[in-house]
Amino acid sequence: MANDKKMVEQITSMDVDFAQWYTDVVKKAELVDYSGVKGCMIIRPYGYAIWENIQHDLDARFKKLGHENVYMPMFIPESLLQKEKDHVEGFAPECAIVTIGGQNRLAERLVVRPTSETLFCDHYKNIIHSYRDLPKLYNQWCNVVRWEKTTRPFLRTSEFLWQEGHTMHENEEQAREETLKMLKCYEDFYRETLAIPAVTGRKTEKEKFAGAKETYTIEPMMHNGVALQGGTSHYFGDGFAKAFDITYTDRENKVQYPHQTSWGVSTRMIGAIIMTHGDDNGLILPPKVAPIQVAIIPVAQHKEGVLEKANALKEQLSEKFRVKLDDSDNSTGWKFSQYEMKGVPLRLEIGPRDIENNSCVLVSRVSREKTFVSLDNIVEEVEKALKAVHDELYARAEKNLAEKMNIARNHDEFLDIAQNNPGFIKAMWCGDAECEDKLKDETGGVKSRCIPFVEENISDKCVCCGKPAKHMVVFGRQY
Amino acid sequence: MANDKKMVEQITSMDVDFAQWYTDVVKKAELVDYSGVKGCMIIRPYGYAIWENIQHDLDARFKKLGHENVYMPMFIPESLLQKEKDHVEGFAPECAIVTIGGQNRLAERLVVRPTSETLFCDHYKNIIHSYRDLPKLYNQWCNVVRWEKTTRPFLRTSEFLWQEGHTMHENEEQAREETLKMLKCYEDFYRETLAIPAVTGRKTEKEKFAGAKETYTIEPMMHNGVALQGGTSHYFGDGFAKAFDITYTDRENKVQYPHQTSWGVSTRMIGAIIMTHGDDNGLILPPKVAPIQVAIIPVAQHKEGVLEKANALKEQLSEKFRVKLDDSDNSTGWKFSQYEMKGVPLRLEIGPRDIENNSCVLVSRVSREKTFVSLDNIVEEVEKALKAVHDELYARAEKNLAEKMNIARNHDEFLDIAQNNPGFIKAMWCGDAECEDKLKDETGGVKSRCIPFVEENISDKCVCCGKPAKHMVVFGRQY
Repeated sequence: MANDKKMVEQITSMDVDFAQWYTDVVKKAELVDYSGVKGCMIIRPYGYAIWENIQHDLDARFKKLGHENVYMPMFIPESLLQKEKDHVEGFAPECAIVTIGGQNRLAERLVVRPTSETLFCDHYKNIIHSYRDLPKLYNQWCNVVRWEKTTRPFLRTSEFLWQEGHTMHENEEQAREETLKMLKCYEDFYRETLAIPAVTGRKTEKEKFAGAKETYTIEPMMHNGVALQGGTSHYFGDGFAKAFDITYTDRENKVQYPHQTSWGVSTRMIGAIIMTHGDDNGLILPPKVAPIQVAIIPVAQHKEGVLEKANALKEQLSEKFRVKLDDSDNSTGWKFSQYEMKGVPLRLEIGPRDIENNSCVLVSRVSREKTFVSLDNIVEEVEKALKAVHDELYARAEKNLAEKMNIARNHDEFLDIAQNNPGFIKAMWCGDAECEDKLKDETGGVKSRCIPFVEENISDKCVCCGKPAKHMVVFGRQY
Repeated sequence: MANDKKMVEQITSMDVDFAQWYTDVVKKAELVDYSGVKGCMIIRPYGYAIWENIQHDLDARFKKLGHENVYMPMFIPESLLQKEKDHVEGFAPECAIVTIGGQNRLAERLVVRPTSETLFCDHYKNIIHSYRDLPKLYNQWCNVVRWEKTTRPFLRTSEFLWQEGHTMHENEEQAREETLKMLKCYEDFYRETLAIPAVTGRKTEKEKFAGAKETYTIEPMMHNGVALQGGTSHYFGDGFAKAFDITYTDRENKVQYPHQTSWGVSTRMIGAIIMTHGDDNGLILPPKVAPIQVAIIPVAQHKEGVLEKANALKEQLSEKFRVKLDDSDNSTGWKFSQYEMKGVPLRLEIGPRDIENNSCVLVSRVSREKTFVSLDNIVEEVEKALKAVHDELYARAEKNLAEKMNIARNHDEFLDIAQNNPGFIKAMWCGDAECEDKLKDETGGVKSRCIPFVEENISDKCVCCGKPAKHMVVFGRQY
């Protein structure tokens, strides 16, 4: 039976070809299917369930911080997109444009939203008049489109799902505070929910978001040392407010422009989960977003009492966890491989001998360690084991991040590391975009990720031009 | 202070101008804002929170019935849309079309999904091979676009939010069962969650969905007697499967076409809530989807102990209900009007004398009845009062539906009722689409809503042509 072939044989090893491993995993774990629409993916039930768990967790964090959800139109009239100069320049090259509606050529072309700053501003102009209307803390869950030439599921697709927060504040101080608060919210979410550590900091001038005064970023490192821009939080100042003529009357009865932020994370996070935690047996999902947290596999399930006990366990555990009992007629070996491939954090095996001993076997997807546990306190044991999976995933990723964090004291070291050591590179920088360009060209793609909040003093000179250094920058290749 | 002006004075009376009343309510209750994008609306926090509550409830019902959520691309290549003849004919006139992507004219134009049958079929072709792969019970929450000439918030907009279920089954029987099961799911949801009664049945040939073999519908009646198509469930047979070449090997090892269904409801339901339950004081929300279920209004809030008690009550009630305490410096009268306008089902007033008596006042938004209740069992009292609001809303709507349900025994009666009595008309019909057309023309828009599951025998003859009648049809004007 073809199904009996071990899943693990069907995927490429990470060390042989990481890109192919990724492609194999997203397909075999049934996260996505390719669609007939160029650059667009189908998110299958198992992949979408991860997204739902992510949404559920993040949305609660946003609401706790006082944010409200809204829904803006997905079409942006071209004239509206053009109101803020830097913004339109940044996005114009990657827009999908509707030119026909109801069988007629449109008088004004409509851009399918690549992001919604302009729409939010257009609305804020109508509803913000007084300081009493501030802050406005809005968020939107939606699809956006950015036309891409080369695409990869979750990492880079022409259409993707995301949330975009857009907030308005009385002054710079409050807006800056919000920008950093939301970056921290993402950082906490990555650590507490996705078990992913990351470097955080602000983007250089060159890498900022189109129209932003300041862009902060969270940059987790994938297993192969490549960075993934995991989320960004922008401070806009009052640039958009001026472009859209949004004003309010302040506490002293003076007319002022409000200060703005935006922040977003997307389905790309699922790519981060896959490439941070996965291994040669497939996906490994952090328990908090795993659609199935415990897979119950009955052993010798035809023997009397086994399925009954397995079902009773399922019922008991389902009160607290997301549980799947697989009582199909596939072989036990096939089932083991299947749920490993799908990254289920915990496997629970139960057979006749276990039942005799009033126990079962728990197997961690990360350590692959087997533990015999008593059925008397199975709920606590499962809870403990899931927490252990989360902690172990985080520790492993943290170790990878530390091991692949290189330091370059001079230009030669930088080029040598870029060529030979996968990972991030800490190095000093003069603040000049030309040096960023040069380093990127010389290394075939190593870019500044961010200027971390805490900078070390590695040397006094720019790693590229040798002029006095202004900042320590973390560099790296990116997805 | 402009704010002190009673809200109720700001909206048109229902009896004077129902359409203007609707527009006033959606604006004043802050459900939507008009956008600069023709035909598209902005759903504001209060409106979107209703949609979130609807989604949460419906999604749980779908999942309980075994459905899984997925996400399909929002673009449909024109060639894909054209694969099923009836389908493309139905939708072509109202498509928005992307012709430019990444600054290049596209080789193939992309239709922004008006519905996703074609995309689901394209995917099902890849993943359905054996009877073991069936049924496939997929659902999607997303935005869709249907180009509209005249638009009204929630009722008819070029872009709207909805869910679309798409399922595949081994045979006709199972697919037909699913079609009716999902109609019943909608009916239960309308009754249990939205407190809205409705006529249900199947659409005539003329009114069927493009490509469907059978369309079932739920048709609630608005306060003014006009119908709103509240949700539909379609049986497709194997028409799409054949057009898309989706086959599976059945239990006898024969190659077969699967049978298909789809079903959907949209943000239009918010329109149904407004027009079924609202009154001249504004919105009335069914408690189960109300973003605020209880508004606590402190009376004489500057007096010692009032705000403390109000806050304590808020804390206590928030464990079980969605509660808002308004301790702003707006007048008590303004607050009363404000939360009436916003349709909050229950108002809780608490002042110094109430505190002395260890009681508070509950005011129902529907009956406007005041009840003094003891604070000792406030949670139970609020629960009871919310249930009463739900039941009263349902009873009121049911009464309206019964009162405005007319019977026409012959052509003259039909025309007379259509002209003079708002509401639905039960009448006999020969089965001929020409009679439907004629009745619609003669009455300026009265159309067949559906053939109910239980038909009465009003007469033996078609109300239009006098030929032998085949069915009893419920007719009505529609939004």
